[in-house]
Amino acid sequence: MYVLVTYDVETASPQGSRRLRRVAKICVQYGQRVQNSVFECSLDPAQFETMKSELMKAADLTRDSLRFYNLGKNWKRKVEHVGAKEAYDPEGLLCV
Amino acid sequence: MYVLVTYDVETASPQGSRRLRRVAKICVQYGQRVQNSVFECSLDPAQFETMKSELMKAADLTRDSLRFYNLGKNWKRKVEHVGAKEAYDPEGLLCV
Repeated sequence: MYVLVTYDVETASPQGSRRLRRVAKICVQYGQRVQNSVFECSLDPAQFETMKSELMKAADLTRDSLRFYNLGKNWKRKVEHVGAKEAYDPEGLLCV
Repeated sequence: MYVLVTYDVETASPQGSRRLRRVAKICVQYGQRVQNSVFECSLDPAQFETMKSELMKAADLTRDSLRFYNLGKNWKRKVEHVGAKEAYDPEGLLCV
């Protein structure tokens, strides 16, 4: 499954900055960063559940928010990127 | 069509902060903010093209990035929200 993960972490406090780093680190392990707080992940359902549970532990759910979009099949045709930092292909080579 | 718009605007300079405000303002006109730089928009194809063109003018495409995900039908079943700031329903009432 192809999942888009987006997050908002409240970084007004040092604890918030720590949470942000932790959340980003988890996302990096599971997918490709396409924007600052947007990741595209190619996962099987078990991996998705593990990632979600790790993220939910790392975030403060009273302050931060996580969103997961199941992009389904043919997701590449549904995505359009404009501007800097062209998207990575989670199934392909990492182009930097 | 239901479109998810995400953006990264480089805000290191005052010009960047201005661009960020402009980009956000355009997105607010077309959709519901679900996270800081994530909007869900219910649009017809012409509105989508207009929004995209406005965003591309407002952003500096050498520094900023815009991503558009066509969420297709049944998009509500594909979205999962966890934590603070529960999502708005672009077709329904605004719940605050």
